[in-house]
Amino acid sequence: MSKQELVVLGQDEGGCCPTLLTEPMDDDQAVELAKVFKALGDPIRLRLLSMIASPAGGEICVCDLTPAFELSQPTISHHLKLLKQAGLIDSERRGTWVYYRLVPETTDRLAAILTRPTVAGAVS
Amino acid sequence: MSKQELVVLGQDEGGCCPTLLTEPMDDDQAVELAKVFKALGDPIRLRLLSMIASPAGGEICVCDLTPAFELSQPTISHHLKLLKQAGLIDSERRGTWVYYRLVPETTDRLAAILTRPTVAGAVS
Repeated sequence: MSKQELVVLGQDEGGCCPTLLTEPMDDDQAVELAKVFKALGDPIRLRLLSMIASPAGGEICVCDLTPAFELSQPTISHHLKLLKQAGLIDSERRGTWVYYRLVPETTDRLAAILTRPTVAGAVS
Repeated sequence: MSKQELVVLGQDEGGCCPTLLTEPMDDDQAVELAKVFKALGDPIRLRLLSMIASPAGGEICVCDLTPAFELSQPTISHHLKLLKQAGLIDSERRGTWVYYRLVPETTDRLAAILTRPTVAGAVS
């Protein structure tokens, strides 16, 4: 298994309800979380991530990613590196090729952060 | 009601399941969605958004936002403008002050985009 560069998104280990919509976020949390959103803030990286997340087999060869873009291999590699540094994808080299897969824990965490709490004190 | 600059996130009006984790995203969708994630890709804007989303009353005066940051009013205004252009917040001027509120439809949409589909063809 290749090493992961996962970002800690919020301090709640249980995975429940970190704080974007429920209370003011502290600076450290915001700095960490902003890195992940920044990685998503580019159309090429979003398309790469969607291609990586989609295959039924759970992973995709870099050799299947590159032909979908009119970009050089180094440019694609750079975007993939940023997604990996943000903890959104992981990779494994097997023989000639590198294979990429989604880190679903990270997207789960982002989805939770963006989900409104169910009632509990909210006034509409 | 002040004018909104909402971004269309995905073409599915029903709000169900646009495509980041289920199928390769097309370029137009990726360009629109990247704008919103880019707006979130900054710690100041994340803290502002969390402050705007948190108040029980559903809105916050710019006069309560600015003192929380060691930044000039024009800098805060610039960040608020980017959040508004991304469709994440809306604003209304009343008297001297501008009041900001979350546009929950946008964060709901982002949460849906980042939520894994429940089984249905996915192979683990």
